[in-house]
Amino acid sequence: MLRQLHEGVTAIFVTFVLRRLGWGWWVAVVEALRWDGSALSLLDQRVLPATTQWLAMRSWTDVVEAIATMVVRGAPAIGIAAAYGLALAEAAGDDLQVAGARLVAARPTAVNLAWAVRGALAAGPGGRRAFAEALHARDAAINRALGDAGAALLPEHPVVYHHCNTGALATGGWGTALGIVRSVVARGGRPKVWVGETRPWLQGARLTAWECAVEGIDATVLVDSAAASVLGGCDAVLVGCDRVARNGDVANKIGTLGLAILAKHFGVPFYVAMPWSTFDADTPDGSAIAIEQRPADEVVGWAGQRWAADAPVFNP
Amino acid sequence: MLRQLHEGVTAIFVTFVLRRLGWGWWVAVVEALRWDGSALSLLDQRVLPATTQWLAMRSWTDVVEAIATMVVRGAPAIGIAAAYGLALAEAAGDDLQVAGARLVAARPTAVNLAWAVRGALAAGPGGRRAFAEALHARDAAINRALGDAGAALLPEHPVVYHHCNTGALATGGWGTALGIVRSVVARGGRPKVWVGETRPWLQGARLTAWECAVEGIDATVLVDSAAASVLGGCDAVLVGCDRVARNGDVANKIGTLGLAILAKHFGVPFYVAMPWSTFDADTPDGSAIAIEQRPADEVVGWAGQRWAADAPVFNP
Repeated sequence: MLRQLHEGVTAIFVTFVLRRLGWGWWVAVVEALRWDGSALSLLDQRVLPATTQWLAMRSWTDVVEAIATMVVRGAPAIGIAAAYGLALAEAAGDDLQVAGARLVAARPTAVNLAWAVRGALAAGPGGRRAFAEALHARDAAINRALGDAGAALLPEHPVVYHHCNTGALATGGWGTALGIVRSVVARGGRPKVWVGETRPWLQGARLTAWECAVEGIDATVLVDSAAASVLGGCDAVLVGCDRVARNGDVANKIGTLGLAILAKHFGVPFYVAMPWSTFDADTPDGSAIAIEQRPADEVVGWAGQRWAADAPVFNP
Repeated sequence: MLRQLHEGVTAIFVTFVLRRLGWGWWVAVVEALRWDGSALSLLDQRVLPATTQWLAMRSWTDVVEAIATMVVRGAPAIGIAAAYGLALAEAAGDDLQVAGARLVAARPTAVNLAWAVRGALAAGPGGRRAFAEALHARDAAINRALGDAGAALLPEHPVVYHHCNTGALATGGWGTALGIVRSVVARGGRPKVWVGETRPWLQGARLTAWECAVEGIDATVLVDSAAASVLGGCDAVLVGCDRVARNGDVANKIGTLGLAILAKHFGVPFYVAMPWSTFDADTPDGSAIAIEQRPADEVVGWAGQRWAADAPVFNP
């Protein structure tokens, strides 16, 4: 108990000092995946922020299940998880083609998943583990560069509207759109973040608000439909994305289209933050992107408690 | 048991015949308020659709509490409830000015409430009961006329997007925006209704979807942020409203502004359905309308279960 307290106080002090020095981004406070060289654990994002629970992935089938049920989510993070899944499959001597196909099918919209699986399969015999580890490390570094590039487009202390979760929880670290916010902090800025709750899965209220709270970033949660009430006072709308087609069409979380139209109406810059792996040259335009239909359960209630009347549900 | 079954079957048969004859609107299946000449009961809209529970109002203070906590909601319905509240106050010999002021303060945005209280106070000694009863009956009749006028603007079998709840539950009967849908049905049309769930209080998913299910209207629930995905295929957006200022500015449920901007973008007609009592000549424009700030509890969870991280909330 005392030791835990001591460690906690030390961690807070180190974090504080690193932040003051502008090195705050070295403090890896939030992460979605842990790999110890042979075993993968995923932070269960279904039960955050109430519970911080790490789930051990015993095989690639566990990873398929974890991706489909959103234990892990966010386009870059599921790509990394899938690559580790193939590393587990190779270590166990399982059929890599079968594992790859099942991993890709777990979430159809994001292209990073298929891209990571293709890369792992092409890495050659014995090479999946090194591929996954490199992908993981590279994603965090890419996001840091992406965040800095995005921050350069914003005022020193920007007010931004953020949709869904695109932070360290959605990536190999740092984050894409939320990475821009982290980069603003890293250069000494004090961003104010409007956090759209992001129905139905509430990634904003649960995950983005949590990441911001952990890092002391000024964030206020609001229902998605309140966006129009605050956008006029924003310097930018920041979103991540699942896939960009060859013509530039963007597929992302439900609500992104509406936000883009509102941003245009209010004359607010709308930035889609993405690593290169999200660009899909094989998809000519948005109409060729499969839009996942999620279960009605996500809309009609929460934690087994139903609030909706008995009616059909549309949950793209 | 058998008698209940018999009554149920008879009710369904009568409803069916009346609907076939185009008189379906006579079947008062959904109502928010019941008055038996001396006692007022309110259908508890906080627990719908899971539970159908009528709460007896023993005094005008019960009515204040019921309006503030949204046992009864919807601009026209809270006006009627407040008028009955003053009838109860008069019958009990309570101070009418005090009761009126407390009733008006229970929900600041909707003007119908202040309008109904002013009317009841002006009705003179012994006149509050008759005023409330007339207001109640007149509201249902006005809504029927409003619904028919709105239906005349739509195709025979329209696809509409509806926000919040503006049905029989929100009014003295029939409904304003949802009354238009009922009028479409009454003239033999088969409307398709996209029901925006309407966070944070979920009036759409809980109440509008329930009213539609009770009446056999084709309705599909979706999260508010999905509106942009379906609006392009809609014949109209239908909303009610809390107050219209002298210059035409409209105050209504959070999300209405965003929907209006989206409707403009997609070239879809946007109709605000309101009785005359919602027009407020004393308010020059929208900036003079007090926008109620509701508790954070409505946003961070449901039924005592919290899902959101520990962060400030903006809930207009």
